[in-house]
Amino acid sequence: MKGISILVLAAAAAGFSGTASAQFAKPEDAIKYRKSALFVMQQHFARIGAMVNGKVPFNAKQAAEDAAIAESMSKLPWAAFGEGTDMGDTKARAEVWMEKDKFKAGSDKLQLEMSKLAAASKTGNLDSIKKAFQAAGATCKSCHDAFRD
Amino acid sequence: MKGISILVLAAAAAGFSGTASAQFAKPEDAIKYRKSALFVMQQHFARIGAMVNGKVPFNAKQAAEDAAIAESMSKLPWAAFGEGTDMGDTKARAEVWMEKDKFKAGSDKLQLEMSKLAAASKTGNLDSIKKAFQAAGATCKSCHDAFRD
Repeated sequence: MKGISILVLAAAAAGFSGTASAQFAKPEDAIKYRKSALFVMQQHFARIGAMVNGKVPFNAKQAAEDAAIAESMSKLPWAAFGEGTDMGDTKARAEVWMEKDKFKAGSDKLQLEMSKLAAASKTGNLDSIKKAFQAAGATCKSCHDAFRD
Repeated sequence: MKGISILVLAAAAAGFSGTASAQFAKPEDAIKYRKSALFVMQQHFARIGAMVNGKVPFNAKQAAEDAAIAESMSKLPWAAFGEGTDMGDTKARAEVWMEKDKFKAGSDKLQLEMSKLAAASKTGNLDSIKKAFQAAGATCKSCHDAFRD
């Protein structure tokens, strides 16, 4: 971070992943933001997991609510992976910024699978929810394996 | 936390603020969840603040997006203030659990004001957005003064 102004970082970030990146006051905020959004998503996703894995009774209404929140949250983290946010309190690997196309494809796929999970959860059909949950979970794992320490 | 099973905590939490509380695996998760949701909300709220205070140019589309996210996020933290989540990495005061009605009223008011801000932001009228922003900001401050160290 030394010697690099926030303005330059923000401009670089905007170039990478949209104007939203330019709106973090400092890189630490971007890191905290993406971790926060991913944690909230994971918590709701895990609640659906507990249902599809039989650890808690299936509750269709609750699953639909959790999936809708997880879907919304899945859209948020990506604008916060701007340039200059690779240091500090983060497990993000350098590959996030070295393999931007692959990272973008992974984040797009997650959002797609979370949308499918939300759609499946609206049907109330546990088998459909389970399949969509597993597909979404596979996208989480795939990106974590490639991009997270 | 010692000697108190998670199950008992979860049951107590469910009694306090709805079934969602029962779904946190441990109190630390509830604390991290509510802080995460509030941080994401604050970030989007602050972006609107920067516009209404003239620090960045007004962008109606961006303001509407930020307000919609802030409104959604404003609904999430409250289920995570269950019993047994008053210890650990939190600035929440004991008053949260001692004055539950007042805390509930404050969180309801915040959600209402965030909804009004989202509605105002859809109109694209900066004056309306500014008024709604200030009203919502006042609810943040009021609760922080009473319930946060």
